[in-house]
Amino acid sequence: MALKFGVIGGGSWATAIVKMLSENLDEVGWYMRSVYALEHLKKEQHNPNYLSAVEFDTTRLKLSNDINTIIDYADYLIFAIPSAFVGKELEKVSSHFKNKIVFSAIKGIVPESGKIVGVHFHDAYEIPYENIGVITGPCHAEEVALERLSYLTIACADEEHAKVMAKHLGSDYINTTITDDTIGTEYAAMLKNIYAIAAGIAHGLGYGDNFQSVLMSNAIREMKKFIKKVHKMKRNINDSAYLGDLLVTGYSVFSRNRMFGNMIGKGYTVKSAQMEMSMVAEGYYAAESAYKIKEKTGAKTPIIDAVYEVLYKRKDPKKTFKKLTEKLD
Amino acid sequence: MALKFGVIGGGSWATAIVKMLSENLDEVGWYMRSVYALEHLKKEQHNPNYLSAVEFDTTRLKLSNDINTIIDYADYLIFAIPSAFVGKELEKVSSHFKNKIVFSAIKGIVPESGKIVGVHFHDAYEIPYENIGVITGPCHAEEVALERLSYLTIACADEEHAKVMAKHLGSDYINTTITDDTIGTEYAAMLKNIYAIAAGIAHGLGYGDNFQSVLMSNAIREMKKFIKKVHKMKRNINDSAYLGDLLVTGYSVFSRNRMFGNMIGKGYTVKSAQMEMSMVAEGYYAAESAYKIKEKTGAKTPIIDAVYEVLYKRKDPKKTFKKLTEKLD
Repeated sequence: MALKFGVIGGGSWATAIVKMLSENLDEVGWYMRSVYALEHLKKEQHNPNYLSAVEFDTTRLKLSNDINTIIDYADYLIFAIPSAFVGKELEKVSSHFKNKIVFSAIKGIVPESGKIVGVHFHDAYEIPYENIGVITGPCHAEEVALERLSYLTIACADEEHAKVMAKHLGSDYINTTITDDTIGTEYAAMLKNIYAIAAGIAHGLGYGDNFQSVLMSNAIREMKKFIKKVHKMKRNINDSAYLGDLLVTGYSVFSRNRMFGNMIGKGYTVKSAQMEMSMVAEGYYAAESAYKIKEKTGAKTPIIDAVYEVLYKRKDPKKTFKKLTEKLD
Repeated sequence: MALKFGVIGGGSWATAIVKMLSENLDEVGWYMRSVYALEHLKKEQHNPNYLSAVEFDTTRLKLSNDINTIIDYADYLIFAIPSAFVGKELEKVSSHFKNKIVFSAIKGIVPESGKIVGVHFHDAYEIPYENIGVITGPCHAEEVALERLSYLTIACADEEHAKVMAKHLGSDYINTTITDDTIGTEYAAMLKNIYAIAAGIAHGLGYGDNFQSVLMSNAIREMKKFIKKVHKMKRNINDSAYLGDLLVTGYSVFSRNRMFGNMIGKGYTVKSAQMEMSMVAEGYYAAESAYKIKEKTGAKTPIIDAVYEVLYKRKDPKKTFKKLTEKLD
């Protein structure tokens, strides 16, 4: 019997993942919260809110706005919702969630627990680590919609699970790599959002491309030290899942995290920037969690510190970043 | 007696370096070939062709269009001319060039010798290696003109020479770092132009941001292996002089190398792209030299190979890059 895959989420990344799976599967399970979006999808064959140019054959989708229906349906679950909603969504779960193989395509920290998603799943639902995986970029969903060649890294302690997931996501325009560094790739995906905020703040303050390249070069060194303290293993921090993911976000003018940082650099308060964007950038939560973690582990993280101080301690971005520039090289 | 500095070159990078030195010195020597530009500079206080918004106090410049005048004048010489002109300019040299401390701000290979500039100086003029240095970015001259914070790396086997140069280039908007990795930084500066051509070709062929980040992530790993084979020493390839320099060029839409690659990707022949640009991108020569070097050293360099094959073997860019994508991860 063919394995069944279910995607949890109605955003652009969830939509992109359903598209990737549809290249390989006769049917894909898809949960989204919004009844409106779901009805629109059924009638018009596309998600009204995200990647609306992507057409789906809805006869090949198992759609539901009941999360338990999709959890029951699938052998492999892929969570692709903002980390801020993970806690709320999981409150609804009544099914035998803990027997599933769960992949996180979420780039962030669960605010309620301050944990990366994999660890949160493990601790809160007793899912064994070998059944928890991570799907990471570098990958903008918008380019998946355009079928532009993109590379995904699939991380899981259990190599077979990683291979199965990689096989079902791969296609003409998706190259996949597997790794057993679940923890490292997930932290990288979370940290890069903080660095994207830093890039945005710097840009907003008037720093240019020369500084941006120095910032990214320092960021990858900082990321390496941070992750090493949390989970020491042999990894090449310049692999696409770490450096590539940092670059695609840090250099993207469409990144919500970078945009949020840019507004802070231009003088918005945190609150007004969040209201203006009508959402909270993932990196906002990540900055606080990362700061707490580095306080415990003792990693030296001047960039994370600067972002944290600006976002949570109301420190002046201009002065804080001036001081930061003296710590970089 | 104060040390004297002379800059060789009339382009944007030479102009930026004269500006940096002027922040620290009462007088700066400056050679440029063009009599027209020199006369204009004397009359109008700016270089007519490059960074023309930068005003100079010409009473504090020792200007000449005779290279020997400036070589005789200076204790420290900085060469900032396209590598393709180095041979021609040096033919004119009659002075006691070999007793000078010579820094190269040239990012490339001397086409006549196929050598990086430092090695060329050493071999052709018997300048000892401890008197040869490298000034490297990440640094667009245009941002120096705007006094946007930029970081330079000054490399010299003799730490004192590096420190002296760093001290005279540093200012409010220029942070400096020193290193003894003259060979490594110079190869990095040369290789990054090849990777910028690769980024341009990919862009011209329609690859997007996701692929660009994978390309850069593979490029830095390839660069590390290449340089290690040429000159093995302890270095962090993610330092700004290597990774930062790669990023500032690879992500710049103004990079001549990236622009050249873009035209190739869009279907121009090498010749027509060069004619259209009315110049030869540094990376064009670098690709051939790097290819020859890697054939000797045995480094695995799929990106350099692909660029070399497209530029020198008239291989189809589309097919060549399709094959390349399968070698990346």
